[in-house]
Amino acid sequence: MSKIPADSVGIVVPQDFRVPVGSAGWPLKSGAHLPELVIRYEVYGELSSKRDNVILVCAPLTADAHAAGFHSEQDKSAGWWEPLIGPGKAIDTRIYCVICSNNLAGCRGTTGPLSRNPLTGKPYGSSFPSILIDDMVNAQKALIEGLGIRKLAAVAGGSMGGFMAMKWAIEYPDWVDRCIIIASTTRLSGQALGFETVGRGIITADPAFDSGDYYTDGRPAVGQGPIEGLKHARKLAHITYLSALAMERKLVRFDADKRDPSKFRTGSGVEGYLNYQGDKFVERFDANSYLHITWAMDNFDLEHEYGSLRAAFSNVQCEVLNINLSSDWLFPPHESRKISQELLNNRKVVTSVELDSPYGHDGFLVEDMPEISSIIQRFLEEDHLDIASKQSAKPSLENLRATHEAIHAHEALQIFKDRKDFALVEKVITPGARVLDLGCGDGGLIDALWRSRGIQGVGMEKDLKGILGCLERDVPVLQADLDQGLAQVESDSFDFVILNRTLQEVRQPLELLREILRVGHKAIISFPNFGSYKVRGGLLFNGRMPMSENLPHQWHNTPNIHLFTLDDFKDLCAKDQIKIEALHCLSSSWLGRFLVGAGLPNLGAEQVVAIVGRGQS
Amino acid sequence: MSKIPADSVGIVVPQDFRVPVGSAGWPLKSGAHLPELVIRYEVYGELSSKRDNVILVCAPLTADAHAAGFHSEQDKSAGWWEPLIGPGKAIDTRIYCVICSNNLAGCRGTTGPLSRNPLTGKPYGSSFPSILIDDMVNAQKALIEGLGIRKLAAVAGGSMGGFMAMKWAIEYPDWVDRCIIIASTTRLSGQALGFETVGRGIITADPAFDSGDYYTDGRPAVGQGPIEGLKHARKLAHITYLSALAMERKLVRFDADKRDPSKFRTGSGVEGYLNYQGDKFVERFDANSYLHITWAMDNFDLEHEYGSLRAAFSNVQCEVLNINLSSDWLFPPHESRKISQELLNNRKVVTSVELDSPYGHDGFLVEDMPEISSIIQRFLEEDHLDIASKQSAKPSLENLRATHEAIHAHEALQIFKDRKDFALVEKVITPGARVLDLGCGDGGLIDALWRSRGIQGVGMEKDLKGILGCLERDVPVLQADLDQGLAQVESDSFDFVILNRTLQEVRQPLELLREILRVGHKAIISFPNFGSYKVRGGLLFNGRMPMSENLPHQWHNTPNIHLFTLDDFKDLCAKDQIKIEALHCLSSSWLGRFLVGAGLPNLGAEQVVAIVGRGQS
Repeated sequence: MSKIPADSVGIVVPQDFRVPVGSAGWPLKSGAHLPELVIRYEVYGELSSKRDNVILVCAPLTADAHAAGFHSEQDKSAGWWEPLIGPGKAIDTRIYCVICSNNLAGCRGTTGPLSRNPLTGKPYGSSFPSILIDDMVNAQKALIEGLGIRKLAAVAGGSMGGFMAMKWAIEYPDWVDRCIIIASTTRLSGQALGFETVGRGIITADPAFDSGDYYTDGRPAVGQGPIEGLKHARKLAHITYLSALAMERKLVRFDADKRDPSKFRTGSGVEGYLNYQGDKFVERFDANSYLHITWAMDNFDLEHEYGSLRAAFSNVQCEVLNINLSSDWLFPPHESRKISQELLNNRKVVTSVELDSPYGHDGFLVEDMPEISSIIQRFLEEDHLDIASKQSAKPSLENLRATHEAIHAHEALQIFKDRKDFALVEKVITPGARVLDLGCGDGGLIDALWRSRGIQGVGMEKDLKGILGCLERDVPVLQADLDQGLAQVESDSFDFVILNRTLQEVRQPLELLREILRVGHKAIISFPNFGSYKVRGGLLFNGRMPMSENLPHQWHNTPNIHLFTLDDFKDLCAKDQIKIEALHCLSSSWLGRFLVGAGLPNLGAEQVVAIVGRGQS
Repeated sequence: MSKIPADSVGIVVPQDFRVPVGSAGWPLKSGAHLPELVIRYEVYGELSSKRDNVILVCAPLTADAHAAGFHSEQDKSAGWWEPLIGPGKAIDTRIYCVICSNNLAGCRGTTGPLSRNPLTGKPYGSSFPSILIDDMVNAQKALIEGLGIRKLAAVAGGSMGGFMAMKWAIEYPDWVDRCIIIASTTRLSGQALGFETVGRGIITADPAFDSGDYYTDGRPAVGQGPIEGLKHARKLAHITYLSALAMERKLVRFDADKRDPSKFRTGSGVEGYLNYQGDKFVERFDANSYLHITWAMDNFDLEHEYGSLRAAFSNVQCEVLNINLSSDWLFPPHESRKISQELLNNRKVVTSVELDSPYGHDGFLVEDMPEISSIIQRFLEEDHLDIASKQSAKPSLENLRATHEAIHAHEALQIFKDRKDFALVEKVITPGARVLDLGCGDGGLIDALWRSRGIQGVGMEKDLKGILGCLERDVPVLQADLDQGLAQVESDSFDFVILNRTLQEVRQPLELLREILRVGHKAIISFPNFGSYKVRGGLLFNGRMPMSENLPHQWHNTPNIHLFTLDDFKDLCAKDQIKIEALHCLSSSWLGRFLVGAGLPNLGAEQVVAIVGRGQS
């Protein structure tokens, strides 16, 4: 065992579960039936006595049940999500029991085209019925039920695994507590569909395909049939899994030994790399499985199936974490984002993360993306597992959550004592209101308002550090730039929108104000007043751009790109039909407070908190 | 003829030119020889008596000699660059004589794999020698020479045609006056190479390929051999020609009639569209030609061939226009840009345009990209053709250029009278200096400085309108954002860098100042002074963000995102080892001028022109 790392789940043994089916067989969504259904799966970690700690991992297109650990001491490569699953890892097997199964129609143990049809004794081949993502999910559910489990602590999947995770959340809302979706979308893009179409065309055009009945009599196995076609399809698909930059790195040009004009081989590094990927793939995957599973993937389209994305997500009850990867052009961020947007517009609890990644779609396999681990760990509330472990030798999920809550509850309300402007916000917010905090940082204000006012809060934040803070506090947050982020939020979604010391930082302040009052009924806007006597005096007497506690940056590196005074703000509101309901002028000096008291707020206020609504003042 | 539009070149007749070859045959770069070389070509417009008005159009991958016009009155589709070539179009056949030939190794008349080898009487098939882009260009040159032409007014090409245009400019610098490159790069990207590799693999794996000797005995023709493989390769390639958005528009989902699970057909719009493209393609293109030409394209790599891109472009003498398309992911803008950068760093005359386009790589075919026409028209100095036409019934290129020059010379120097700050710039600039004008607008200042000081000027500008203005004035310009544009410019490239009223608009003013003094020895910076008495008074007495002639915007929509005073500027220079060599303080009021004269420039100046260099003041 010396070679197996300590943070691995170690040696695992795949297991088979035979789903009890009646004489009619196992029903598929198409109406067809499978005469039998066997599911190969693996388990990592221990099932708790309450059976409440199961995380179901959904395998993407060509992956199998082997998500973590090793099959033997000699096994050179670990499971496909090894970086994420194990003791001390993001999906921590000290607390969670992880289950992963081979997908229906696959070729690694679960019933698929190369399985023997018990009715004929021969491999299914061309007679294997076409399936949908729903069928794959239903097979997983049969396994989960068969294992005596009635609720999943979480379901997680990347890419096509994300399709399955979404289906779980949509179709079996009572069964799922949390849902983790990585690098996935609500359907394939036109481009991705195009590549799939070509890939399948290449396989079925291979003369060795023989309409799918290519298995050597009596010994169906991977590695038979349209090997050449499958290789080309895989090479093609593999290009789409990598970012342009990642492909560029493979480009070692003109290896003269491998250049062969008569065979049109350039000898480029890309060529060699893709050939290697193609050769490796056909050793482990069956062409019929590839055809069936990609076909299921291509037909997944939540908008088409449910009438609209709004309708699709309307029944979701779990908390959702949705991560997209910047350089993923197969499941592109602007499509992935729609999942979060529609969940938000359905008033579901969703956190959306936009990760900067150079790796393309394959980044979801996490090898070089430790950020994914950090995010998932916090989403699964494991960030205080070490403390909980000290209190109990074998902490349960309940122990863990209690520890977590105790730590955060202790600190949360201090914020109203530390920040005058936040104390003002607390007074204004009505109990139970829906609140959007723009530029919410670590979510501290939302957490505190939830504790003191019972609000339903959502944050919007640009920086990953803030997002991680929100995840620690269980504050749902959308990672977005304020200049764009509100566009997809439905009108009248919130009772209050908070914008703290940020209006002067955005590119288009007026457009943002309008957007804020479109999505929210009222807004609480705080800003530094460039008209304060300190600022005016600074410019007048020093002849330099003023710096102060509220304006701490130098002119050339300040994020405050649109400075304005209280009177500028008032003018704008008057002109744009924005109603100022209340103004609170804050100053750190007695002179400032005196000037405010004397009716000269534009001269006295260093910071202003304005409550605004729609319509004329 | 009623159906043929008036702005078409009309009916054209392809011609064949037999290149005279000795007994050794036509030499290829590989050392091999072709026993004969026949080139099919078309001509649009009339050759001038001086034979100085020829524009050679280089055909991309699968296009042929038929770039414009129609082959008969019944002909339904025009040549492949019809939107660009014709009387009154961007490449105006009233003034230019356009020649386009079918590429070597093609299948539309020029010698290629399906031509008969005169030595054997049989089609070449597998015996056709492998070729490079150089060989295609040399074949074009043999044609041009054979037609008695010794100089090209311009060579133009998009995509692989751009490879050929670059080769002309590099290898035959004396032959080319202007070079137009659209949607091209100095080599294929790793991603593009990957797709090519897969495409060729699919074709050669088709059993009908038969090592390339698939022509029906005695009757070689397009439409024979590995038709299925060629179809798939074309479908794959076609996806890469379109942007993701363009593919999305093809996505009409679930045409139930065309859905066929047993054949793994989804019935999606993308599927039908690609099938149509594949079917159409194999009717007009030969698999061997596709293999040979893509192989030549894949092996094109200027950096590898010449040791560096710097070396590759070092002999270029012509004026270059390089256009990239924003949504082109096959020949991506960041790679295309390198052409312009290396030409600039070689001190060549280059204009670089970054066009916003939703169409992807195929945008270079211009159908929906009228901007390409506007740009090329100005680059070819045709913008005053109508005036020249009034002076001479049949204007020559010389007439045209004389008209052009007369119009611009008349207006250019007025700028020094209209703008005090420009007059100051004129005084500072030394004759013959290399000058970079950042945010150069329509290039008026560079044009005027060229006329009065004989400078070698280059502009940098963000907006297309400005770029078009520069092209009208023959001012070379790079379309770029100042926050990024300088990164690729070599140090010490310029004697002077001019930055007019723009420092306050950029995101990182200090970084830009540093970059300016890296690429230029001295800089002339003009900026509005936020410390002027008018501004200070405005803020002090009105309590609002000041607006003035020099600061005309409202606070919330101003592009001036980093306001500063003269003293702020001085402080920054002192701190950052920037030497202020001279300061000119401008004011529109007598009080301002008085204050400046009284030694209070920070109070008096409304606008400042600073001459700065490297090192402590």
